[in-house]
Amino acid sequence: MKVLGIHHVAIAVKDLDEALKRFSDVLGARAEVEEVPEEKVRVAMIDLGNARIELLQGLSPDSAISKFIEKRGEGIHHIAVEVDNIDEACREISQKGYRLVYPEPKLVAGGKRRVNFVHPKDMHGVLLELVEVVK
Amino acid sequence: MKVLGIHHVAIAVKDLDEALKRFSDVLGARAEVEEVPEEKVRVAMIDLGNARIELLQGLSPDSAISKFIEKRGEGIHHIAVEVDNIDEACREISQKGYRLVYPEPKLVAGGKRRVNFVHPKDMHGVLLELVEVVK
Repeated sequence: MKVLGIHHVAIAVKDLDEALKRFSDVLGARAEVEEVPEEKVRVAMIDLGNARIELLQGLSPDSAISKFIEKRGEGIHHIAVEVDNIDEACREISQKGYRLVYPEPKLVAGGKRRVNFVHPKDMHGVLLELVEVVK
Repeated sequence: MKVLGIHHVAIAVKDLDEALKRFSDVLGARAEVEEVPEEKVRVAMIDLGNARIELLQGLSPDSAISKFIEKRGEGIHHIAVEVDNIDEACREISQKGYRLVYPEPKLVAGGKRRVNFVHPKDMHGVLLELVEVVK
């Protein structure tokens, strides 16, 4: 497997519209808000050219994002790196002894990405997402 | 001012050598460890092609990184975006009402970068670094 670069950095926020206004203001970039009910989030992906900042708001108190904010407050939630082949990446990383969050990669973003996460306990508190962009 | 992209994502760790081993293992990329006494850190910058992951370990208990870990535990510390002109960026961002951490951009990384930070209280808990790479 090959890591192609940082795909996005995700930020957990309480009020996506307010956060998008602020990040757009400071970064001089716009983005559309999308609702993804199956992942219980509202999301805005701000494209900065080489990579993206993803703003995430939980749609209900039991969403992972809402729980994160309840525990730690708003802030950076995870880093996502793009890999050429997610199945190969998961296999190699597991074989090296690192724990993955899902037993199999999960299709997200309306079928546009296949993802898994390396467990933060194995990565110094960092939730590291592995992303394969579906061609 | 123009944002050129994500420059790096910084991670605060207790043991840089251990963290570098793990991130290198998972990302398949190497990096050198450097000591920057004037910033009270040991640092390793892992180049992922389009952007970097910066691992930071405090050199003393009074370093910003050690204090962060004491308060929040290890994990993602800040996101840095590259701008073409840091003076212009700071002026524009201040004029829009966002607070900056330093009154003037600071020269860091042995003179290779000029930086400032937007205050996390204005950015939904995110410490956002602005970086101009010195040519």
